[in-house]
Amino acid sequence: MPVRVPASHRDLLERPLFCALGTTRPDGAPQVNPMWFLWDGERILMTHTTRRRKYANLAADPRASVLIFDPENPYRYLELRGRLIDVEPDPEARFFDRLAERYGSTARHPDDAPDRVVLVIDPETVSTQ
Amino acid sequence: MPVRVPASHRDLLERPLFCALGTTRPDGAPQVNPMWFLWDGERILMTHTTRRRKYANLAADPRASVLIFDPENPYRYLELRGRLIDVEPDPEARFFDRLAERYGSTARHPDDAPDRVVLVIDPETVSTQ
Repeated sequence: MPVRVPASHRDLLERPLFCALGTTRPDGAPQVNPMWFLWDGERILMTHTTRRRKYANLAADPRASVLIFDPENPYRYLELRGRLIDVEPDPEARFFDRLAERYGSTARHPDDAPDRVVLVIDPETVSTQ
Repeated sequence: MPVRVPASHRDLLERPLFCALGTTRPDGAPQVNPMWFLWDGERILMTHTTRRRKYANLAADPRASVLIFDPENPYRYLELRGRLIDVEPDPEARFFDRLAERYGSTARHPDDAPDRVVLVIDPETVSTQ
């Protein structure tokens, strides 16, 4: 069953805000990185490549935390905790291009397209403030 | 030996930006929360209480990741990874008040002052982009 995101915080999922993605490194230490994301109504989608640390972290431990705060009022925030449930190849970088457009970036079809994937994160809990 | 923060990113530590603090929950899952912080030139200081989940997380596993990104250009960011090395009581909320002032908040001497502490995080590695 999809998590319920309170209407008061749904804009944080819809606006092109950077999120802070928390993952766990192989030695158990936390890692946090800024990421683009897209909310499809039930899941968080991110573009990534299979060659970076975050990907290795999630491949070893799929649990993730996604924090989004309102830049105009950082006291208002949303944290989604869940896990990586799917990794979809994106060798044409179509999803990358879609996210780049959402974020107003002129980047298109990056050199690392062959390694591009869509990370699909299923949120299990929602915290808001 | 203190970590070296590149001059190009030092402003991110000096400006009153919210950081995203990554900790590890008792079951090993990552947690990310927005936090106020103060950089004293070598360490990250945060105000917190002993009654919240983040504190329990750090008491069980002192490893932490602190992400700060430039709100005007989120592609420019700083991630400090290290560990909690000290917890200083702040029962008069003096450090809280100092941080509140830094962040332009009118909050002073909160009701939970008796439980207030200063979290001292020693960064061991720096990543920038």
